[in-house]
Amino acid sequence: VEFDGPCMKTEVPGPRSKILAQQLESIQSVVQVNFFCDYEESKGNYLVDVDGNRMLDVYTQIASIPIGYNHPALTKVMTDPKNMGTFVNRPALGMMPPEQFSEKLVNGLMAVAPKGFSRVQTMACGSCSNENAYKAIFIWYRVRAGVLSFFFQVPGCPDLTLLSFMGGFHGRTLGCLATTHTKAIQKLDVPSFDWPIAPFPQLRYPLDQFERENAREEARCLEEAEDLIVKWNQKGRHVAGVVIEPIQAEGGDNHASFDFYRKLRGITKKHGCAFLVDEVQTGGGSTGKFWAHAHWGLDDPADIVSFSKKMLTGGYYQKDSFQPDKPFRIFNTWLGDHTKNLLLTEVIKVIKTENLLDQAKRSGKVMLEGLYDLQDKYPHLLSKARGIGTFCAIDVKDEDTRNLLLLKARNKGVVLGGCGTQSIRFRPALVFKEHHAHLFLDIFNDAIAEL
Amino acid sequence: VEFDGPCMKTEVPGPRSKILAQQLESIQSVVQVNFFCDYEESKGNYLVDVDGNRMLDVYTQIASIPIGYNHPALTKVMTDPKNMGTFVNRPALGMMPPEQFSEKLVNGLMAVAPKGFSRVQTMACGSCSNENAYKAIFIWYRVRAGVLSFFFQVPGCPDLTLLSFMGGFHGRTLGCLATTHTKAIQKLDVPSFDWPIAPFPQLRYPLDQFERENAREEARCLEEAEDLIVKWNQKGRHVAGVVIEPIQAEGGDNHASFDFYRKLRGITKKHGCAFLVDEVQTGGGSTGKFWAHAHWGLDDPADIVSFSKKMLTGGYYQKDSFQPDKPFRIFNTWLGDHTKNLLLTEVIKVIKTENLLDQAKRSGKVMLEGLYDLQDKYPHLLSKARGIGTFCAIDVKDEDTRNLLLLKARNKGVVLGGCGTQSIRFRPALVFKEHHAHLFLDIFNDAIAEL
Ligand code: FES
Repeated sequence: VEFDGPCMKTEVPGPRSKILAQQLESIQSVVQVNFFCDYEESKGNYLVDVDGNRMLDVYTQIASIPIGYNHPALTKVMTDPKNMGTFVNRPALGMMPPEQFSEKLVNGLMAVAPKGFSRVQTMACGSCSNENAYKAIFIWYRVRAGVLSFFFQVPGCPDLTLLSFMGGFHGRTLGCLATTHTKAIQKLDVPSFDWPIAPFPQLRYPLDQFERENAREEARCLEEAEDLIVKWNQKGRHVAGVVIEPIQAEGGDNHASFDFYRKLRGITKKHGCAFLVDEVQTGGGSTGKFWAHAHWGLDDPADIVSFSKKMLTGGYYQKDSFQPDKPFRIFNTWLGDHTKNLLLTEVIKVIKTENLLDQAKRSGKVMLEGLYDLQDKYPHLLSKARGIGTFCAIDVKDEDTRNLLLLKARNKGVVLGGCGTQSIRFRPALVFKEHHAHLFLDIFNDAIAEL
Repeated sequence: VEFDGPCMKTEVPGPRSKILAQQLESIQSVVQVNFFCDYEESKGNYLVDVDGNRMLDVYTQIASIPIGYNHPALTKVMTDPKNMGTFVNRPALGMMPPEQFSEKLVNGLMAVAPKGFSRVQTMACGSCSNENAYKAIFIWYRVRAGVLSFFFQVPGCPDLTLLSFMGGFHGRTLGCLATTHTKAIQKLDVPSFDWPIAPFPQLRYPLDQFERENAREEARCLEEAEDLIVKWNQKGRHVAGVVIEPIQAEGGDNHASFDFYRKLRGITKKHGCAFLVDEVQTGGGSTGKFWAHAHWGLDDPADIVSFSKKMLTGGYYQKDSFQPDKPFRIFNTWLGDHTKNLLLTEVIKVIKTENLLDQAKRSGKVMLEGLYDLQDKYPHLLSKARGIGTFCAIDVKDEDTRNLLLLKARNKGVVLGGCGTQSIRFRPALVFKEHHAHLFLDIFNDAIAEL
């Protein structure tokens, strides 16, 4: 049975967290540490810290806990003696996979494959998922272009490019970082690739009052994206692919209409670019569908779909043609972590048996209506309530106020995270029910009232 | 108790492996798959496949199993109920670390920190370890150069570079790949950075017969490396750091003298470059010291040391000055995987209590002497036996013969891996004892005799 609500004993971080941070500081930077947690005591939607504070978690380790803390289905995986070998011996999955590898992929990742995908490549995190998806795209582009590149004697440094969007986030390793455009500090000092960057629509809210303006804004961005593809192709720096999130999550929960994405897909087809949908943060069910891009209503919405976070393992689904022509072009020592495949198989079972996608729709409805009410109540503070399923966000009038509100909410027992310059993102687990949404809204309201 | 030797029932891959490969092929490329394993049945130095073949493992999942399969100390970690929370709830370690995080780092990674290092950054694999080490170097270089880069309004794409070596391998994500120069196929079609690449000494064997030639070759490579640094600095594309492996492992187990590395360290100091030693494959004890670079005998051998594989977690040790000045410059969702820290702490205890570094020295002596004997016996087939501890290799007359020998050895019950164009690398676990070495040599001899 889950806890019946938050229970706060100290400010957060409390004294015990502070002592632990001091200890950690002698070997590692702690500037990013919020507080220390007691993961044994945490349960369901409640995260317990080392000072005994119990908080409703609407951030879930940066959107990465799928079905809450210590779900019994997962505990069972761990105590099953026949899984022991997997947990203590990490295989090189590409060369010597375990007996159950196929079966776990079939019942795990493939059981929730986006429509149109029959192949999956496992990786270990969002960054290697995207890095390798980029490589698969470059290889595909050259092979498809009929260039018999394999017979070149010297490894080419071809001048291929990837088009990404302002405000997009795809990871922080050097390849990913070339397509990440959120905060300046992330890219400062680090060498990057000179690749085209298109504007992402800046929609005005409430959407129903700005339909015409928003349609115009989206048309402008699409035109600019297509222009960039044409121009870069003309100058010999061919755009092999386009990478985009269904909702720009780190960048501030920036949405575009489904129609925008449908048209962008059309542009990629017209110009022979691969279309990579990065579902690292949006995937896994919180939008009410397992994949956020499934909302677009397209038969062929993507060539590659990358994932991580709530999927526990990283990786990407790919169309058959993106399978490299030769071995070891996409490879590394571990190619993921089979322990995560075991856990994911159970997560997917739970999502299905407990109907958690419908739950996300229902809880999301409560959340979003509550957020609308709050922005009506505090129009000088809040704006742009938006979301699909529980994947919601709201803007606060400025960055300092946003940060203050995050701290106030935490001290009242709700863990939240920011995104963009002045947004708060809501990222509960899939076991977040309507009553959790109501509870969250009450506490959030109290925190706002104190501003 | 461990098995007393290999036991072969079928050719490898056997019928069951072939069926599983066919199943996997419908969702994933299997061109790299050797055979499927039964990780529950595997034990110590013996890997058991799904056809019941039991093989002496001298490859260990691409050099990544530290103390053999199913070591009881690791099984114990898994069955300890107080570790359950760590295994089923993966924290965002940078923001909300678990209570025991510091303690596990202190008793794990810090307990084996290379001399001179008091700080460690955890990551999840070799690639993100190096990618982030590169970023730390670029940031350090700019800060140290007195450029107040933080106050630039536009994210810089600075023209900094990293110097790497021909034949080096540092990973396959786009940043790492720019410094990886082993096989052409790895880099083909993928955009890269234009960074300086120095020659790595091509030593002639046996070393004692070519002392003068080898010294000249090393001097030539050092001169070229220094020239490159000077030239690239002059043209404004400053060399922020130099990255090198203590033994080029993927590239063919290419060794250079300790003196070469000492002099290279001197060059980096002279020109203000960071010195990054990549111990992803060499680290963890198989050279008879915990870190291969500890053999060089330098008080200040490195600024950053990256690791992964046998360390189970990824990450890097860094000098204090490489800690970025601002939060979130080195960051990602998980920043490693605390379950690996738990397991590593036990691995390190086992290495200490069972004196496994000394074991590696003793077993390595048997291995290397045996390899010398074999190359004397088969001079038309084998050459360049070399190694430190059990980290050994030998060259076969050509690539096809090498590949044939690998298959023959496997069918006789020894799992081996190749590296470079015509080398075989030996990468047993630290629990590989003298009698395992003798057993391996006997079987290897039989396989060679059949060529
Ligand atoms: S880059 Fe993904 S785990 Fe290292």
